[in-house]
Amino acid sequence: MNAEFVNPFLQALQNVMSMMAQTELKPGKPQLKKDDVARGDVSGIIGMVGPQIKGSFSISFEENLACEIMNKMLGEMPDSVDDEVCDMVGEITNMVTGGAKKTLGEKGYEFDMATPIVVSGKDHTISHRSEGPRIIMPFSHIAGKAYIEICFDKIG
Amino acid sequence: MNAEFVNPFLQALQNVMSMMAQTELKPGKPQLKKDDVARGDVSGIIGMVGPQIKGSFSISFEENLACEIMNKMLGEMPDSVDDEVCDMVGEITNMVTGGAKKTLGEKGYEFDMATPIVVSGKDHTISHRSEGPRIIMPFSHIAGKAYIEICFDKIG
Repeated sequence: MNAEFVNPFLQALQNVMSMMAQTELKPGKPQLKKDDVARGDVSGIIGMVGPQIKGSFSISFEENLACEIMNKMLGEMPDSVDDEVCDMVGEITNMVTGGAKKTLGEKGYEFDMATPIVVSGKDHTISHRSEGPRIIMPFSHIAGKAYIEICFDKIG
Repeated sequence: MNAEFVNPFLQALQNVMSMMAQTELKPGKPQLKKDDVARGDVSGIIGMVGPQIKGSFSISFEENLACEIMNKMLGEMPDSVDDEVCDMVGEITNMVTGGAKKTLGEKGYEFDMATPIVVSGKDHTISHRSEGPRIIMPFSHIAGKAYIEICFDKIG
């Protein structure tokens, strides 16, 4: 897996964040190392399946950052990760993957998206189990950190 | 979604537990209510996509139960949810979904599996975001509780 797969997710995330929440997440250095984990207090997860590839995408937020994005979107600051924040994280997961799906489809990598899942719990870790390479990318913001993790396996 | 969808997962879980770990999980009452959540210390999650349906499956274990299953499989009791336990939970997720895929395929519901993801973190909750119905089913064992959650949406 290379930049061709990662950039569409990165681009889609930045579009979604700037459109929905006028928020800029500063991308850090992508990591290919096996011992890195994505970590956060609320995460959105989605599976992807196509004729040639299958994979998964996750986005994890620290609580303060998730609440700040909610604040920017709705003008109301939640105290903690509540149901509405979980809904928002599920929606962000769908929108980012949908954006990347469009770009990758145009490059000949077709896939369909499964239904998203939201995980909530202080300082959980996310680990994609794939035989193919997986990439973790950290993002920073004054309110907290976010991570995306992407993996794709070739089928057959 | 009805028993036709749920039973193949239930059956596959019990087969996998009995074959791999000589462990019987006692099924509780399935819940359709929107306000129930699956909860655990380590969870396996996988997406499913087919021509007519898309969905997601998760299985969550309390730490003691996950460690006990590991003990039954390998004869070594881990102190906590470590990398090997996460590997095992990823593998159980694959095997249960693979078993259900076979049964559902024979009934005309074809789908392919995405790559599994393992979440680790004390007392996290899992919430499937789907417009279709979702079912949570609790399991009990002397060592602790487990939950499976399944949701399917019709496509189109």
